[in-house]
Amino acid sequence: MDDDFTEFRGIAERMADAARDVTLRHFRTELRIDSKRSDFDPVTAADREAEAAMRAILAETRPDDGILGEEAATVAGTSRWTWVLDPIDGTRAFISGMPTWGVLIALCDAGGPRLGLIDQPFTGERFAGGPGVAAWTRGDAARALGVRGTTELAEATILTTFPEVGTEAEAAAFHRVARACRLTRYGMDCYAYALLAAGHVDLVIEAGLQAYDICAPIAVIEAAGGIVTDWQGGPAHDGGTALAAATPELHAAAMDLLNG
Amino acid sequence: MDDDFTEFRGIAERMADAARDVTLRHFRTELRIDSKRSDFDPVTAADREAEAAMRAILAETRPDDGILGEEAATVAGTSRWTWVLDPIDGTRAFISGMPTWGVLIALCDAGGPRLGLIDQPFTGERFAGGPGVAAWTRGDAARALGVRGTTELAEATILTTFPEVGTEAEAAAFHRVARACRLTRYGMDCYAYALLAAGHVDLVIEAGLQAYDICAPIAVIEAAGGIVTDWQGGPAHDGGTALAAATPELHAAAMDLLNG
Repeated sequence: MDDDFTEFRGIAERMADAARDVTLRHFRTELRIDSKRSDFDPVTAADREAEAAMRAILAETRPDDGILGEEAATVAGTSRWTWVLDPIDGTRAFISGMPTWGVLIALCDAGGPRLGLIDQPFTGERFAGGPGVAAWTRGDAARALGVRGTTELAEATILTTFPEVGTEAEAAAFHRVARACRLTRYGMDCYAYALLAAGHVDLVIEAGLQAYDICAPIAVIEAAGGIVTDWQGGPAHDGGTALAAATPELHAAAMDLLNG
Repeated sequence: MDDDFTEFRGIAERMADAARDVTLRHFRTELRIDSKRSDFDPVTAADREAEAAMRAILAETRPDDGILGEEAATVAGTSRWTWVLDPIDGTRAFISGMPTWGVLIALCDAGGPRLGLIDQPFTGERFAGGPGVAAWTRGDAARALGVRGTTELAEATILTTFPEVGTEAEAAAFHRVARACRLTRYGMDCYAYALLAAGHVDLVIEAGLQAYDICAPIAVIEAAGGIVTDWQGGPAHDGGTALAAATPELHAAAMDLLNG
Protein backbone atom coordinates (compact mmCIF):
# COMPACT_ATOMS: atom_id res chain seq x y z
CA MET A 1 0.00 0.00 0.00
CA ASP A 2 1.29 3.46 -0.84
CA ASP A 3 1.84 5.90 1.96
CA ASP A 4 -1.17 8.15 2.08
CA PHE A 5 -0.02 11.55 3.28
CA THR A 6 -3.52 12.94 2.98
CA GLU A 7 -4.62 10.34 5.53
CA PHE A 8 -1.54 11.00 7.68
CA ARG A 9 -2.23 14.71 7.67
CA GLY A 10 -5.86 14.15 8.58
CA ILE A 11 -4.79 12.09 11.59
CA ALA A 12 -2.24 14.71 12.60
CA GLU A 13 -4.91 17.42 12.37
CA ARG A 14 -7.28 15.38 14.54
CA MET A 15 -4.49 14.98 17.10
CA ALA A 16 -3.76 18.71 17.02
CA ASP A 17 -7.46 19.50 17.47
CA ALA A 18 -7.60 17.21 20.49
CA ALA A 19 -4.45 18.72 22.01
CA ARG A 20 -5.80 22.21 21.36
CA ASP A 21 -8.98 21.50 23.32
CA VAL A 22 -7.04 20.15 26.29
CA THR A 23 -4.35 22.82 26.40
CA LEU A 24 -6.75 25.75 26.01
CA ARG A 25 -8.85 24.42 28.86
CA HIS A 26 -5.78 24.73 31.12
CA PHE A 27 -4.10 27.80 29.63
CA ARG A 28 -4.10 30.84 31.92
CA THR A 29 -5.77 28.99 34.76
CA GLU A 30 -4.12 28.14 38.04
CA LEU A 31 -2.17 24.97 37.52
CA ARG A 32 -0.39 22.54 39.71
CA ILE A 33 3.16 22.73 38.44
CA ASP A 34 5.64 20.06 39.32
CA SER A 35 9.18 19.58 38.26
CA LYS A 36 10.67 16.63 36.42
CA ARG A 37 14.21 17.65 37.18
CA SER A 38 15.90 19.65 39.90
CA ASP A 39 16.22 22.71 37.65
CA PHE A 40 13.00 24.50 36.80
CA ASP A 41 11.11 22.46 34.21
CA PRO A 42 7.38 22.77 34.68
CA VAL A 43 5.13 20.01 33.50
CA THR A 44 1.46 20.67 33.63
CA ALA A 45 -1.63 18.58 33.69
CA ALA A 46 -2.28 19.99 30.23
CA ASP A 47 0.94 18.47 28.95
CA ARG A 48 0.05 14.98 30.12
CA GLU A 49 -3.61 15.08 29.13
CA ALA A 50 -2.84 16.47 25.69
CA GLU A 51 -0.34 13.72 24.95
CA ALA A 52 -2.79 11.08 26.21
CA ALA A 53 -5.47 12.50 23.89
CA MET A 54 -3.10 12.31 20.92
CA ARG A 55 -1.99 8.78 21.77
CA ALA A 56 -5.61 7.67 21.99
CA ILE A 57 -6.16 8.81 18.40
CA LEU A 58 -3.08 6.91 17.25
CA ALA A 59 -4.18 3.78 19.12
CA GLU A 60 -7.41 3.90 17.16
CA THR A 61 -6.11 4.90 13.72
CA ARG A 62 -2.45 3.79 13.54
CA PRO A 63 -1.95 0.99 16.07
CA ASP A 64 1.14 -0.37 14.29
CA ASP A 65 3.13 2.88 14.31
CA GLY A 66 5.72 3.79 16.93
CA ILE A 67 5.31 6.76 19.29
CA LEU A 68 7.97 8.96 20.83
CA GLY A 69 6.45 11.53 23.16
CA GLU A 70 7.68 13.89 25.83
CA GLU A 71 5.35 12.76 28.57
CA ALA A 72 4.85 8.98 28.32
CA ALA A 73 6.81 5.85 27.41
CA THR A 74 8.10 5.24 23.91
CA VAL A 75 6.05 2.79 21.87
CA ALA A 76 8.03 0.60 19.46
CA GLY A 77 5.90 0.14 16.37
CA THR A 78 5.94 -2.56 13.71
CA SER A 79 5.43 -0.23 10.72
CA ARG A 80 8.12 2.05 9.27
CA TRP A 81 6.53 5.11 10.92
CA THR A 82 7.03 6.81 14.25
CA TRP A 83 4.93 9.70 15.54
CA VAL A 84 6.97 12.21 17.50
CA LEU A 85 4.90 14.32 19.91
CA ASP A 86 5.46 17.31 22.14
CA PRO A 87 2.10 18.23 23.65
CA ILE A 88 3.35 21.60 24.91
CA ASP A 89 6.62 22.87 23.52
CA GLY A 90 7.43 25.91 25.63
CA THR A 91 6.00 25.01 29.02
CA ARG A 92 7.66 28.10 30.53
CA ALA A 93 5.80 30.29 28.02
CA PHE A 94 2.61 28.37 28.77
CA ILE A 95 2.78 28.94 32.53
CA SER A 96 3.59 32.62 31.91
CA GLY A 97 0.47 33.15 29.78
CA MET A 98 2.41 33.81 26.56
CA PRO A 99 0.99 32.83 23.15
CA THR A 100 4.28 31.38 21.85
CA TRP A 101 4.13 27.75 23.03
CA GLY A 102 2.83 25.09 20.69
CA VAL A 103 1.74 21.54 20.10
CA LEU A 104 4.27 19.67 17.94
CA ILE A 105 3.36 16.60 15.91
CA ALA A 106 5.73 14.90 13.47
CA LEU A 107 5.62 11.71 11.45
CA CYS A 108 9.08 10.25 10.91
CA ASP A 109 10.66 7.29 9.18
CA ALA A 110 14.27 6.20 9.44
CA GLY A 111 15.29 9.13 7.23
CA GLY A 112 13.75 11.72 9.54
CA PRO A 113 10.59 13.85 9.67
CA ARG A 114 8.29 13.63 6.65
CA LEU A 115 5.23 15.49 7.95
CA GLY A 116 4.93 18.06 10.72
CA LEU A 117 2.43 20.34 12.44
CA ILE A 118 3.15 23.30 14.70
CA ASP A 119 -0.11 24.32 16.34
CA GLN A 120 -0.64 27.44 18.50
CA PRO A 121 -3.99 26.91 20.18
CA PHE A 122 -4.48 30.40 21.65
CA THR A 123 -3.90 32.32 18.42
CA GLY A 124 -5.63 29.50 16.54
CA GLU A 125 -2.77 29.16 14.06
CA ARG A 126 -1.56 25.92 12.56
CA PHE A 127 1.61 25.54 10.46
CA ALA A 128 1.75 22.31 8.43
CA GLY A 129 4.52 20.93 6.23
CA GLY A 130 5.01 17.69 4.33
CA PRO A 131 4.57 16.14 0.88
CA GLY A 132 2.17 18.40 -0.99
CA VAL A 133 1.52 20.75 1.92
CA ALA A 134 3.17 23.92 3.25
CA ALA A 135 0.31 25.85 4.83
CA TRP A 136 -0.60 28.33 7.52
CA THR A 137 -4.22 28.10 8.60
CA ARG A 138 -6.26 29.99 11.17
CA GLY A 139 -9.92 29.08 11.24
CA ASP A 140 -11.09 29.56 7.67
CA ALA A 141 -8.07 31.63 6.66
CA ALA A 142 -5.21 29.91 4.85
CA ARG A 143 -1.95 31.00 3.32
CA ALA A 144 0.99 29.17 1.73
CA LEU A 145 4.11 28.95 3.84
CA GLY A 146 7.38 30.02 2.26
CA VAL A 147 10.70 31.20 3.61
CA ARG A 148 12.03 34.58 2.54
CA GLY A 149 15.10 35.09 0.39
CA THR A 150 17.54 36.75 2.80
CA THR A 151 21.11 35.74 1.97
CA GLU A 152 23.22 38.07 4.16
CA LEU A 153 23.55 37.81 7.93
CA ALA A 154 23.63 41.60 8.08
CA GLU A 155 20.05 41.60 6.77
CA ALA A 156 18.83 38.70 8.88
CA THR A 157 16.56 38.44 11.91
CA ILE A 158 17.72 35.67 14.23
CA LEU A 159 15.74 34.01 17.01
CA THR A 160 16.46 31.73 19.93
CA THR A 161 14.44 31.04 23.06
CA PHE A 162 16.98 31.70 25.83
CA PRO A 163 20.00 34.02 25.52
CA GLU A 164 21.92 31.37 27.51
CA VAL A 165 21.47 28.82 24.64
CA GLY A 166 22.75 25.53 26.09
CA THR A 167 26.35 25.31 27.30
CA GLU A 168 28.70 28.26 27.71
CA ALA A 169 30.55 27.35 24.50
CA GLU A 170 27.23 26.97 22.65
CA ALA A 171 26.08 30.37 23.92
CA ALA A 172 29.33 31.97 22.73
CA ALA A 173 28.85 30.38 19.30
CA PHE A 174 25.25 31.59 19.09
CA HIS A 175 26.22 35.14 19.99
CA ARG A 176 28.95 35.19 17.32
CA VAL A 177 26.18 34.65 14.78
CA ALA A 178 23.74 37.00 16.50
CA ARG A 179 26.24 39.86 16.52
CA ALA A 180 26.51 39.55 12.73
CA CYS A 181 22.73 39.76 12.30
CA ARG A 182 20.52 42.80 11.98
CA LEU A 183 18.08 41.87 14.72
CA THR A 184 18.06 39.29 17.53
CA ARG A 185 14.90 38.32 19.39
CA TYR A 186 14.29 35.89 22.23
CA GLY A 187 11.51 33.98 23.88
CA MET A 188 9.47 32.51 21.02
CA ASP A 189 9.85 28.74 21.65
CA CYS A 190 8.54 26.66 18.70
CA TYR A 191 6.76 29.71 17.33
CA ALA A 192 10.19 30.85 16.15
CA TYR A 193 10.36 27.97 13.65
CA ALA A 194 6.84 28.73 12.48
CA LEU A 195 7.78 32.38 11.85
CA LEU A 196 10.77 31.23 9.81
CA ALA A 197 8.58 28.92 7.68
CA ALA A 198 6.11 31.78 7.16
CA GLY A 199 8.84 34.14 5.92
CA HIS A 200 8.92 36.61 8.82
CA VAL A 201 12.36 35.80 10.21
CA ASP A 202 15.52 34.24 8.80
CA LEU A 203 17.40 32.13 11.33
CA VAL A 204 16.58 30.07 14.41
CA ILE A 205 19.47 28.59 16.35
CA GLU A 206 19.05 26.43 19.43
CA ALA A 207 20.90 23.86 21.51
CA GLY A 208 20.00 21.26 24.13
CA LEU A 209 17.00 20.05 22.13
CA GLN A 210 15.16 16.76 22.35
CA ALA A 211 13.97 14.96 19.21
CA TYR A 212 10.35 15.92 19.98
CA ASP A 213 11.33 19.62 20.06
CA ILE A 214 12.66 19.67 16.52
CA CYS A 215 11.05 16.97 14.32
CA ALA A 216 7.87 18.91 13.53
CA PRO A 217 9.76 22.18 12.90
CA ILE A 218 12.08 20.36 10.47
CA ALA A 219 9.16 19.08 8.39
CA VAL A 220 7.42 22.46 8.36
CA ILE A 221 10.53 24.47 7.49
CA GLU A 222 11.71 22.05 4.79
CA ALA A 223 8.26 22.11 3.20
CA ALA A 224 8.46 25.92 3.21
CA GLY A 225 11.80 25.83 1.37
CA GLY A 226 14.16 26.30 4.32
CA ILE A 227 16.99 24.22 5.74
CA VAL A 228 17.43 22.63 9.17
CA THR A 229 20.57 20.81 10.28
CA ASP A 230 22.58 20.48 13.46
CA TRP A 231 25.44 22.95 13.95
CA GLN A 232 27.78 20.66 11.99
CA GLY A 233 25.49 20.40 8.99
CA GLY A 234 24.24 16.89 9.83
CA PRO A 235 20.69 15.71 10.56
CA ALA A 236 19.01 17.55 13.45
CA HIS A 237 16.06 15.24 14.05
CA ASP A 238 17.61 13.31 16.94
CA GLY A 239 17.91 16.51 19.00
CA GLY A 240 20.95 18.35 20.30
CA THR A 241 21.73 21.50 18.32
CA ALA A 242 19.63 23.01 15.52
CA LEU A 243 20.40 25.59 12.87
CA ALA A 244 17.34 26.55 10.82
CA ALA A 245 17.85 28.96 7.94
CA ALA A 246 15.77 30.52 5.20
CA THR A 247 18.44 30.06 2.50
CA PRO A 248 21.58 27.99 1.83
CA GLU A 249 23.68 31.18 1.92
CA LEU A 250 22.48 32.12 5.41
CA HIS A 251 22.86 28.54 6.57
CA ALA A 252 26.48 28.41 5.41
CA ALA A 253 27.35 31.82 6.88
CA ALA A 254 25.81 30.93 10.25
CA MET A 255 27.52 27.52 10.34
CA ASP A 256 30.90 29.16 9.70
CA LEU A 257 30.46 31.43 12.72
CA LEU A 258 29.02 28.69 14.95
CA ASN A 259 32.14 26.62 14.36
CA GLY A 260 34.59 29.51 13.97
CA MET B 1 -18.48 69.25 34.25
CA ASP B 2 -17.33 66.08 35.95
CA ASP B 3 -14.78 63.95 34.23
CA ASP B 4 -16.67 61.18 32.50
CA PHE B 5 -14.44 58.11 32.42
CA THR B 6 -17.11 56.10 30.66
CA GLU B 7 -16.91 58.60 27.81
CA PHE B 8 -13.12 58.64 27.96
CA ARG B 9 -12.98 54.86 27.80
CA GLY B 10 -15.38 54.82 24.85
CA ILE B 11 -13.13 57.21 22.97
CA ALA B 12 -10.04 55.15 23.82
CA GLU B 13 -11.78 52.01 22.59
CA ARG B 14 -12.71 53.71 19.31
CA MET B 15 -9.09 54.75 18.91
CA ALA B 16 -7.89 51.21 19.62
CA ASP B 17 -10.37 49.80 17.10
CA ALA B 18 -9.09 52.21 14.46
CA ALA B 19 -5.46 51.38 15.21
CA ARG B 20 -6.28 47.68 15.13
CA ASP B 21 -7.72 47.92 11.64
CA VAL B 22 -4.69 49.77 10.33
CA THR B 23 -2.04 47.65 12.00
CA LEU B 24 -3.61 44.31 11.06
CA ARG B 25 -3.79 45.42 7.44
CA HIS B 26 0.00 45.80 7.49
CA PHE B 27 0.98 43.00 9.88
CA ARG B 28 2.88 40.14 8.20
CA THR B 29 2.93 41.83 4.83
CA GLU B 30 6.03 43.13 3.13
CA LEU B 31 6.64 46.59 4.54
CA ARG B 32 8.87 49.44 3.69
CA ILE B 33 10.95 49.84 6.82
CA ASP B 34 12.93 52.96 7.44
CA SER B 35 14.98 54.01 10.39
CA LYS B 36 14.51 57.07 12.56
CA ARG B 37 17.92 56.76 14.11
CA SER B 38 21.23 55.29 13.08
CA ASP B 39 20.70 52.20 15.26
CA PHE B 40 18.03 49.79 14.13
CA ASP B 41 14.63 51.26 14.96
CA PRO B 42 12.05 50.29 12.38
CA VAL B 43 9.10 52.51 11.80
CA THR B 44 6.42 51.23 9.55
CA ALA B 45 3.66 52.75 7.53
CA ALA B 46 1.34 51.04 9.99
CA ASP B 47 2.83 53.02 12.85
CA ARG B 48 2.22 56.36 11.17
CA GLU B 49 -1.21 55.56 9.78
CA ALA B 50 -2.42 54.11 13.08
CA GLU B 51 -1.39 57.21 15.01
CA ALA B 52 -3.03 59.44 12.39
CA ALA B 53 -6.26 57.43 12.72
CA MET B 54 -6.21 57.85 16.50
CA ARG B 55 -5.46 61.57 16.27
CA ALA B 56 -8.37 62.04 13.87
CA ILE B 57 -10.73 60.59 16.49
CA LEU B 58 -9.34 62.95 19.13
CA ALA B 59 -9.65 65.94 16.79
CA GLU B 60 -13.32 65.12 16.44
CA THR B 61 -14.18 64.16 20.03
CA ARG B 62 -11.62 65.89 22.28
CA PRO B 63 -10.22 68.90 20.40
CA ASP B 64 -9.11 70.67 23.58
CA ASP B 65 -6.95 67.83 24.94
CA GLY B 66 -3.21 67.58 24.45
CA ILE B 67 -1.59 64.72 22.49
CA LEU B 68 1.81 63.13 22.99
CA GLY B 69 2.47 60.47 20.37
CA GLU B 70 5.45 58.54 19.08
CA GLU B 71 5.05 59.42 15.44
CA ALA B 72 3.83 63.01 15.11
CA ALA B 73 4.26 66.37 16.83
CA THR B 74 3.07 67.00 20.37
CA VAL B 75 -0.19 68.94 20.61
CA ALA B 76 -0.46 71.29 23.61
CA GLY B 77 -4.05 71.16 24.79
CA THR B 78 -6.09 73.65 26.77
CA SER B 79 -7.85 71.08 29.00
CA ARG B 80 -6.19 69.26 31.89
CA TRP B 81 -5.93 66.07 29.81
CA THR B 82 -3.23 64.68 27.54
CA TRP B 83 -3.59 61.53 25.43
CA VAL B 84 -0.37 59.56 25.24
CA LEU B 85 -0.18 57.26 22.20
CA ASP B 86 2.12 54.55 20.93
CA PRO B 87 0.56 53.16 17.76
CA ILE B 88 2.90 50.14 17.72
CA ASP B 89 4.85 49.39 20.85
CA GLY B 90 7.29 46.66 19.82
CA THR B 91 8.03 47.49 16.21
CA ARG B 92 10.78 44.85 16.18
CA ALA B 93 8.21 42.23 17.21
CA PHE B 94 5.82 43.58 14.59
CA ILE B 95 8.28 43.27 11.71
CA SER B 96 9.21 39.77 12.92
CA GLY B 97 5.60 38.57 12.80
CA MET B 98 5.31 38.07 16.56
CA PRO B 99 1.99 38.58 18.40
CA THR B 100 3.54 40.53 21.30
CA TRP B 101 3.49 44.12 20.05
CA GLY B 102 0.60 46.36 20.98
CA VAL B 103 -1.26 49.61 20.61
CA LEU B 104 -0.89 51.77 23.73
CA ILE B 105 -3.37 54.51 24.63
CA ALA B 106 -3.27 56.46 27.89
CA LEU B 107 -5.13 59.44 29.26
CA CYS B 108 -3.00 61.48 31.65
CA ASP B 109 -3.33 64.55 33.80
CA ALA B 110 -0.55 66.31 35.69
CA GLY B 111 -0.53 63.46 38.23
CA GLY B 112 0.10 60.78 35.63
CA PRO B 113 -1.91 58.13 33.77
CA ARG B 114 -5.54 57.77 34.82
CA LEU B 115 -6.83 55.45 32.06
CA GLY B 116 -4.95 53.05 29.81
CA LEU B 117 -5.48 50.47 27.09
CA ILE B 118 -3.04 47.82 25.88
CA ASP B 119 -4.44 46.33 22.67
CA GLN B 120 -3.01 43.30 20.84
CA PRO B 121 -4.72 43.32 17.45
CA PHE B 122 -3.61 39.89 16.19
CA THR B 123 -4.75 37.91 19.23
CA GLY B 124 -7.72 40.26 19.54
CA GLU B 125 -7.01 40.95 23.21
CA ARG B 126 -7.53 44.28 24.96
CA PHE B 127 -6.37 45.08 28.49
CA ALA B 128 -8.05 48.17 30.01
CA GLY B 129 -7.44 49.89 33.33
CA GLY B 130 -8.77 53.06 34.95
CA PRO B 131 -11.44 54.30 37.36
CA GLY B 132 -14.02 51.52 37.56
CA VAL B 133 -12.37 49.28 34.99
CA ALA B 134 -9.73 46.53 35.10
CA ALA B 135 -10.69 44.24 32.25
CA TRP B 136 -9.35 41.79 29.70
CA THR B 137 -11.59 41.42 26.68
CA ARG B 138 -11.34 39.35 23.50
CA GLY B 139 -14.31 39.60 21.22
CA ASP B 140 -17.28 38.71 23.40
CA ALA B 141 -15.14 37.16 26.13
CA ALA B 142 -14.28 39.24 29.19
CA ARG B 143 -12.43 38.66 32.45
CA ALA B 144 -11.41 40.89 35.35
CA LEU B 145 -7.74 41.80 35.50
CA GLY B 146 -5.93 41.26 38.77
CA VAL B 147 -2.31 40.76 39.74
CA ARG B 148 -1.31 37.62 41.61
CA GLY B 149 -0.08 37.55 45.19
CA THR B 150 3.55 36.49 44.79
CA THR B 151 5.68 38.07 47.53
CA GLU B 152 9.05 36.27 47.18
CA LEU B 153 11.51 36.82 44.33
CA ALA B 154 12.34 33.10 44.51
CA GLU B 155 8.75 32.39 43.40
CA ALA B 156 8.54 35.17 40.81
CA THR B 157 8.51 35.19 37.02
CA ILE B 158 10.32 38.27 35.68
CA LEU B 159 10.12 39.70 32.17
CA THR B 160 12.01 42.23 30.14
CA THR B 161 12.17 42.74 26.39
CA PHE B 162 15.92 42.72 25.69
CA PRO B 163 18.52 40.95 27.89
CA GLU B 164 20.74 44.02 27.29
CA VAL B 165 18.20 46.27 29.15
CA GLY B 166 19.48 49.83 28.58
CA THR B 167 23.00 50.76 29.71
CA GLU B 168 25.61 48.29 30.96
CA ALA B 169 24.98 49.33 34.59
CA GLU B 170 21.22 49.00 34.08
CA ALA B 171 21.69 45.54 32.58
CA ALA B 172 23.81 44.47 35.57
CA ALA B 173 21.11 45.73 37.93
CA PHE B 174 18.38 43.90 36.04
CA HIS B 175 20.31 40.64 36.10
CA ARG B 176 20.87 40.93 39.86
CA VAL B 177 17.09 40.80 40.21
CA ALA B 178 16.61 38.14 37.52
CA ARG B 179 19.11 35.79 39.18
CA ALA B 180 17.00 35.93 42.35
CA CYS B 181 13.81 35.02 40.45
CA ARG B 182 12.43 31.61 39.58
CA LEU B 183 12.00 32.26 35.87
CA THR B 184 13.19 34.96 33.46
CA ARG B 185 11.63 35.46 30.03
CA TYR B 186 12.42 37.90 27.26
CA GLY B 187 10.88 39.39 24.16
CA MET B 188 7.31 40.28 25.13
CA ASP B 189 7.31 44.08 24.65
CA CYS B 190 4.17 45.72 26.09
CA TYR B 191 2.50 42.32 26.31
CA ALA B 192 4.69 41.75 29.37
CA TYR B 193 2.83 44.46 31.30
CA ALA B 194 -0.50 43.01 30.19
CA LEU B 195 0.52 39.57 31.46
CA LEU B 196 1.44 41.11 34.82
CA ALA B 197 -1.96 42.84 35.08
CA ALA B 198 -3.69 39.58 34.19
CA GLY B 199 -1.88 37.67 36.96
CA HIS B 200 0.35 35.43 34.83
CA VAL B 201 3.75 36.93 35.72
CA ASP B 202 5.09 38.93 38.64
CA LEU B 203 7.70 41.49 37.59
CA VAL B 204 8.52 43.56 34.51
CA ILE B 205 11.68 45.64 34.60
CA GLU B 206 12.79 47.88 31.75
CA ALA B 207 15.01 50.86 31.04
CA GLY B 208 15.39 53.41 28.25
CA LEU B 209 11.64 53.94 27.99
CA GLN B 210 9.75 56.85 26.52
CA ALA B 211 6.62 58.22 28.21
CA TYR B 212 4.42 56.68 25.49
CA ASP B 213 5.90 53.21 26.24
CA ILE B 214 4.84 53.19 29.87
CA CYS B 215 1.79 55.43 30.52
CA ALA B 216 -0.84 52.91 29.37
CA PRO B 217 0.86 49.99 31.20
CA ILE B 218 0.91 52.05 34.41
CA ALA B 219 -2.84 52.68 34.26
CA VAL B 220 -3.62 49.03 33.45
CA ILE B 221 -1.34 47.56 36.13
CA GLU B 222 -2.46 49.98 38.84
CA ALA B 223 -6.11 49.22 38.07
CA ALA B 224 -5.25 45.51 38.41
CA GLY B 225 -3.75 46.10 41.87
CA GLY B 226 -0.08 46.24 40.94
CA ILE B 227 2.63 48.85 41.36
CA VAL B 228 4.73 50.71 38.77
CA THR B 229 7.53 53.13 39.65
CA ASP B 230 10.93 53.99 38.28
CA TRP B 231 13.91 52.12 39.75
CA GLN B 232 14.16 54.68 42.58
CA GLY B 233 10.53 54.35 43.58
CA GLY B 234 9.43 57.61 41.95
CA PRO B 235 6.86 58.17 39.19
CA ALA B 236 7.61 56.23 35.98
CA HIS B 237 5.25 58.00 33.62
CA ASP B 238 7.82 60.35 32.10
CA GLY B 239 9.86 57.38 30.83
CA GLY B 240 13.34 56.19 31.69
CA THR B 241 13.34 53.14 33.94
CA ALA B 242 10.31 51.12 35.03
CA LEU B 243 9.79 48.55 37.76
CA ALA B 244 6.34 46.95 37.64
CA ALA B 245 5.45 44.50 40.40
CA ALA B 246 2.46 42.43 41.45
CA THR B 247 2.88 43.18 45.17
CA PRO B 248 4.57 45.75 47.45
CA GLU B 249 6.84 42.99 48.82
CA LEU B 250 8.14 42.06 45.38
CA HIS B 251 8.50 45.72 44.45
CA ALA B 252 10.62 46.42 47.53
CA ALA B 253 12.78 43.32 47.07
CA ALA B 254 13.42 44.11 43.40
CA MET B 255 14.20 47.78 44.14
CA ASP B 256 16.76 46.73 46.77
CA LEU B 257 18.62 44.60 44.22
CA LEU B 258 18.33 47.17 41.41
CA ASN B 259 20.06 49.73 43.62
CA GLY B 260 22.28 47.30 45.55
